[in-house]
Amino acid sequence: MNDISKYAIATLGSHTALQILKGAQDEGLKSIVICSQKSRRVYESYGVADEIIEISDYQDYFRIEERLIEQQAVVIPHGSFVSYVGADRITAEMKAMYFGSKGILRWESNREIEREWLKKAGVNVPKVFRDSSEIDRPVIIKFHGAGGGFGYFIAHTPEEFHEKIKEFPNQDDYVIQEYVVGVPMYVHYFYSPLSGELEIMSFDKRYESNADSIGRIAARDQLDADLHTSYTITGNIPVVVRESLLPMFFHIGEQVIEASKSLEGVPKGLYGPFCLEGIIDPQLNFRVFEISARIVAGTNPYTHGSPYSWLRYNIPMSTGRRIAREIRQGIEEGRLEDLLG
Amino acid sequence: MNDISKYAIATLGSHTALQILKGAQDEGLKSIVICSQKSRRVYESYGVADEIIEISDYQDYFRIEERLIEQQAVVIPHGSFVSYVGADRITAEMKAMYFGSKGILRWESNREIEREWLKKAGVNVPKVFRDSSEIDRPVIIKFHGAGGGFGYFIAHTPEEFHEKIKEFPNQDDYVIQEYVVGVPMYVHYFYSPLSGELEIMSFDKRYESNADSIGRIAARDQLDADLHTSYTITGNIPVVVRESLLPMFFHIGEQVIEASKSLEGVPKGLYGPFCLEGIIDPQLNFRVFEISARIVAGTNPYTHGSPYSWLRYNIPMSTGRRIAREIRQGIEEGRLEDLLG
Amino acid sequence: MNDISKYAIATLGSHTALQILKGAQDEGLKSIVICSQKSRRVYESYGVADEIIEISDYQDYFRIEERLIEQQAVVIPHGSFVSYVGADRITAEMKAMYFGSKGILRWESNREIEREWLKKAGVNVPKVFRDSSEIDRPVIIKFHGAGGGFGYFIAHTPEEFHEKIKEFPNQDDYVIQEYVVGVPMYVHYFYSPLSGELEIMSFDKRYESNADSIGRIAARDQLDADLHTSYTITGNIPVVVRESLLPMFFHIGEQVIEASKSLEGVPKGLYGPFCLEGIIDPQLNFRVFEISARIVAGTNPYTHGSPYSWLRYNIPMSTGRRIAREIRQGIEEGRLEDLLG
Repeated sequence: MNDISKYAIATLGSHTALQILKGAQDEGLKSIVICSQKSRRVYESYGVADEIIEISDYQDYFRIEERLIEQQAVVIPHGSFVSYVGADRITAEMKAMYFGSKGILRWESNREIEREWLKKAGVNVPKVFRDSSEIDRPVIIKFHGAGGGFGYFIAHTPEEFHEKIKEFPNQDDYVIQEYVVGVPMYVHYFYSPLSGELEIMSFDKRYESNADSIGRIAARDQLDADLHTSYTITGNIPVVVRESLLPMFFHIGEQVIEASKSLEGVPKGLYGPFCLEGIIDPQLNFRVFEISARIVAGTNPYTHGSPYSWLRYNIPMSTGRRIAREIRQGIEEGRLEDLLG
Repeated sequence: MNDISKYAIATLGSHTALQILKGAQDEGLKSIVICSQKSRRVYESYGVADEIIEISDYQDYFRIEERLIEQQAVVIPHGSFVSYVGADRITAEMKAMYFGSKGILRWESNREIEREWLKKAGVNVPKVFRDSSEIDRPVIIKFHGAGGGFGYFIAHTPEEFHEKIKEFPNQDDYVIQEYVVGVPMYVHYFYSPLSGELEIMSFDKRYESNADSIGRIAARDQLDADLHTSYTITGNIPVVVRESLLPMFFHIGEQVIEASKSLEGVPKGLYGPFCLEGIIDPQLNFRVFEISARIVAGTNPYTHGSPYSWLRYNIPMSTGRRIAREIRQGIEEGRLEDLLG
Repeated sequence: MNDISKYAIATLGSHTALQILKGAQDEGLKSIVICSQKSRRVYESYGVADEIIEISDYQDYFRIEERLIEQQAVVIPHGSFVSYVGADRITAEMKAMYFGSKGILRWESNREIEREWLKKAGVNVPKVFRDSSEIDRPVIIKFHGAGGGFGYFIAHTPEEFHEKIKEFPNQDDYVIQEYVVGVPMYVHYFYSPLSGELEIMSFDKRYESNADSIGRIAARDQLDADLHTSYTITGNIPVVVRESLLPMFFHIGEQVIEASKSLEGVPKGLYGPFCLEGIIDPQLNFRVFEISARIVAGTNPYTHGSPYSWLRYNIPMSTGRRIAREIRQGIEEGRLEDLLG
């Protein structure tokens, strides 16, 4: 059995770093956080980082990469990592060990080919309108890459679309999607390439400003003040699903994994944590509007385990810790290579 | 002391089965789940079932009942069990050991006599209108037996009622209830017949499609799209109550237990888990619109214990485990009979 | 090292008493609850009180104070304590040991000077209008001392203000504040005078009647029924924040502590638990509308630890227990005096 003490886990200090670092420690791996001067306070206070590497700009990742390679650190990508370092540079330049399929970043970062993948997996995706003239029902216009969800809007007609789009003069990378009425639900999966098993770790709903508070204002007052909805993510709220929906969620997750195996440029397929982001409509259909092929912030309510992960593990198993456990097993069994993209 | 290893706990694989099965295991009792082929995946993944009995239709319960009797399994009823097997057949045909008062099912399944019970207990129930012509304030029309809450509607006048009821041509089993403005609150109790003590296990609020997301849409957009509210239960969200309300919640729960002791056909009264479903209005009155005389899905956020059960037990005590603990104590003390309906 | 067994922790039986008492026990200190006859049921059921002192009216605190002094009990103030006993009498008459700076009560209880403090700390506070004639945007009118938040209202113009204020004929102690659109967020801090370190314990959002359910009613139906928003606190819901906001939250907390050190009549400054109550707007600014210079009920979801406190402590650390731990350390190190106001 290989010695795990010669390895480390590293990530950028943001997004889901707290649970990733704590998870590494709990599994006996050294934890390294790369962060800015103003963020180190956070990782010090919670005591989750065995080493802090300070950089002035997250895009300076490549300046310190050698230190990660020397320590045999496996880098865990999360939304901020992908956003700061960039999918292209991750694929072309990154030399440190990387947990996950780098090839999946291309599929995840482009809504059109992401949609192909989901449809191939038989997932129920909302209709997308290729041209604004086709709008014949409520639609949501999402600007791609909009940090944290800011800048989405809803329209009902081509006319309304043209009026509202004027407020976003410099953004032409958007999607016009059927607006599905129902409750948002985020499903957090983990697929283990070592065991070949899919797990459901937890569920959450986002806490968006002002979407999740505009309803606190009486309709009459909203009309008076001419209020509009915005979708900036500020946090996450724990939720559990109706137990009778779990077979469906397992099934969908397995279809997505299966379909990922034949995606171009992704020889190992999707593995590790991923999230299906959708709406449960009043007829209990799960309409999926997006997939994140990595850990997402919706797992943050569960740094000490979720109502689901406690059932399976009987110890506090966050998604961050689940990643560390997979890596530990990979090291111990000499199969670490199977986990690297 | 009797040997608990000769007994088992069994339930249908749905609703609250995960916590019931895990709770049985944690208390040292064998756990048996009866489920469909597509559901077994769930109970295998979470490792909570010592035995899985597969049936193709939940109504086939009676085909496998002999296997439960042979294993001295105590069956835990939940919403899906009562719904699939049926209150009548449970009372008339079921031979396996059954946790709870079977007689209470009749009181719980009929809104009119349920209401009698609650009023007798001194509980503050919303006004019910016997005839739609009497509607003089906002009312909610609830179709009884509507799975998961789908098909409720709100009206303000007899005219609006008559217009909206047309959308439900085949349903004439409904109640017209005063629409109480305030926040929904579900109180999860456990009454122990062995100790004679009432406990408050937890609180939750439901996560309903689309009721819990319609407010995310600005009033102006809702009006444009002519959106209506529906109440399909998709999951549950944890919540704690204002501590100064706890004396009231204990008092109401005790009144309900006391009143249940004189209900016709319920010699042992209500015991085990139950839930009061209501609204806390802005004056902090708790208006109760329904009672569930069994475990409900609102306890699912707390498979690893709730902010309340941790105080009392110092171990992860879900409502499912609380049931198993009561049964274990009943077996050990030779009082199991006291727990069976 | 001094003997902690000769000391106790005491509080009034309401608000956050459950976690305070449990925290005392977990840290090896005797727990004493002072409560009414109808409340003792609660503290008995959860087994958190080593001693229950019954009083018929919370204002009778001074009748039993001698018993606390005899037992070397440190009294933990919370919202109900301050409200029932009164800031003036706490400062002038209270003789038992008191955890926290008494002098801070004056700053916290008056919105105008509280605002001075926050502005001095560089905190982003909403605009306050000195006179209703200046109202030029949506504003919220808050009645000071309104128990649990009942009696706030929103207005958009001087005219609307004058119409709505008529519903509150006897209340002239109010503030007219800019109505900030965004999601409510409550940040729970703990500042240790023994270590000089600031910690973030958790976050929550309130569950207010009817503010948090009015959005469940479709806009059309709200208009029909002429519904208005009210803000009575009924409970709390757990939430985590976007990890990238944590550096800001630490920074703001530290500024508030720093500024408190030069407040008149508060020689030791603010210490122990406190809460910043604000709104995160869609541009991710945290607009602070109030500070509570003591433990608040928003920490109640975390009697068994929060997603944050688990990271730091690896044991179930509620805010109540954190207080007890500070007191224990103070006793053991002979520095208890540093913690008393």
